[in-house]
Amino acid sequence: MTDFSIGVDLGGTNLRAAAIDSGGKLLNKISGTTDLKAGREAVIDDMVDAINRLKAENSSLRLAGVGIGVPGFILMEKGVIVGSNNLPQFDHYPVRDEIEKRLGTQVILENDANAAALGEKWIGAGKDVNDLALLTLGTGIGGGIICDGKVLHGHVGMAGELGHITVVPNGNPCGCGNYGCLEKHASATAIVNMARMMSLGHNPSSEDVFKMAVAGDAKAKMIFHAMGSALGIALATLINIFNFPLYLLSGGVLAAWDQFAPAMLSEVEKRSFTYRNAKTTIAKATLGNEAWLFGAAYLPLQHRFPNL
Amino acid sequence: MTDFSIGVDLGGTNLRAAAIDSGGKLLNKISGTTDLKAGREAVIDDMVDAINRLKAENSSLRLAGVGIGVPGFILMEKGVIVGSNNLPQFDHYPVRDEIEKRLGTQVILENDANAAALGEKWIGAGKDVNDLALLTLGTGIGGGIICDGKVLHGHVGMAGELGHITVVPNGNPCGCGNYGCLEKHASATAIVNMARMMSLGHNPSSEDVFKMAVAGDAKAKMIFHAMGSALGIALATLINIFNFPLYLLSGGVLAAWDQFAPAMLSEVEKRSFTYRNAKTTIAKATLGNEAWLFGAAYLPLQHRFPNL
Repeated sequence: MTDFSIGVDLGGTNLRAAAIDSGGKLLNKISGTTDLKAGREAVIDDMVDAINRLKAENSSLRLAGVGIGVPGFILMEKGVIVGSNNLPQFDHYPVRDEIEKRLGTQVILENDANAAALGEKWIGAGKDVNDLALLTLGTGIGGGIICDGKVLHGHVGMAGELGHITVVPNGNPCGCGNYGCLEKHASATAIVNMARMMSLGHNPSSEDVFKMAVAGDAKAKMIFHAMGSALGIALATLINIFNFPLYLLSGGVLAAWDQFAPAMLSEVEKRSFTYRNAKTTIAKATLGNEAWLFGAAYLPLQHRFPNL
Repeated sequence: MTDFSIGVDLGGTNLRAAAIDSGGKLLNKISGTTDLKAGREAVIDDMVDAINRLKAENSSLRLAGVGIGVPGFILMEKGVIVGSNNLPQFDHYPVRDEIEKRLGTQVILENDANAAALGEKWIGAGKDVNDLALLTLGTGIGGGIICDGKVLHGHVGMAGELGHITVVPNGNPCGCGNYGCLEKHASATAIVNMARMMSLGHNPSSEDVFKMAVAGDAKAKMIFHAMGSALGIALATLINIFNFPLYLLSGGVLAAWDQFAPAMLSEVEKRSFTYRNAKTTIAKATLGNEAWLFGAAYLPLQHRFPNL
């Protein structure tokens, strides 16, 4: 009997769920929206409903469990989300236990970037290694660390906050209290802020800045150079700490790879003895948005079959 | 029959070896010097001789193996030291295989700071946790990361180079090629350099600067403040990455804890959301120079008895 599992990506905007078998094959997918206005109970109902539909559609297979990726910190032992800007109604709510109760199935909660890193390790750009770090470059910067094939959680589950590596000690203030966090210098938001500070265009989006850079605009090119350098500082620090074989980048800003990668790689080359002496790959993640779903689905499979 | 093992600390100046039982009890210790002028062969002879004496003195016990801590990068698979400023004659020399051949016993080679971190985890300040990072503050800054009870090696064995975390992107140039490495801003050498730049005293040692700070000299106090702040930036980054319960400091500069710790802790408090929200301890290591020996001795014991 084939084993499968259900991965859920509960974002602030989208609610997606997928049935995936133990070989990594996508069986079915449901895409919807997270209707936070209707309240937390309605969101949980939608989620349970989606999971039950996927269960019913695969009733001939054996369900290993349910994995849910969410933005925010997870207190792993309690199965609780804390400090999520995108899901404030779920703060400190026992979401794991509640869904387990309604489903009668094991549920594993995971930070979404950690889930994405695990997805890439399972069947994406990281499938040939056991250790990798992933940076998700979006409006913010998330991170996930895979160590010996498993998510590195730290002692309460807050590890992998790679967007909060200090890259400019007296840099831009961050909501976390720090100054010069990576995500204040290399996210889509940082690109827009730099454009504003340089009076580039009329309130451009990060995509507009990208298009201007491609068209050869000097200011726009400088912005991606600064963004790539900041990313390079953080990557060099990660490489010096971990000596992992692979560092992956994902998220919307990845489309601008050609604009920021040269500065990023030259910074890493300069700043990391380890990079220059131990074969290290910095590459694009390959699963895109599917990484969150695959990683979430892999959680119960990995728990049940550690050598999968 | 009691198991024991032999730990060796092969430094550029001192060669020490100790027999330690599986309960962490020091049985015998030999302290000598590393006679590099006499050549590599003479150093190996001395080391093998010390190990054989410890074996003979404990012939009623069962030897689990020999662990050797060395400064420099270790290519774990090859058992080779590379890039060691202190042991240039051993560069790329197959030291592990050579000693194994002479002794007929399993030998495990390890970076000295990694060994120290493991020693602290076994019977020092880290004995109650499974995950910790250690920073050794000396003329340089070394690091060791213990993850799930074991040394984090990375894919060739170069992980844990915590002295090369970037804390000031345009800071002091480092021999590794980077600018603003932690060790260029927070080691004993950095303290001396800052004193020189501030025309403090007449070519003072780091200890002199410490004494001046204790006596209330404003410049000396500022130096330790700057050093503590640099350390705090690196620690905040480590805490945001790992969410470990424990970060330890060791080495000669530790004597100045009262001078640098306030700036260090206030920087960490400001820069790390994780520090403010997950119980995290930053503390002095407790084994001093013995950590290297205990950690080196623990390597073969841990290899043989994974649940020790």
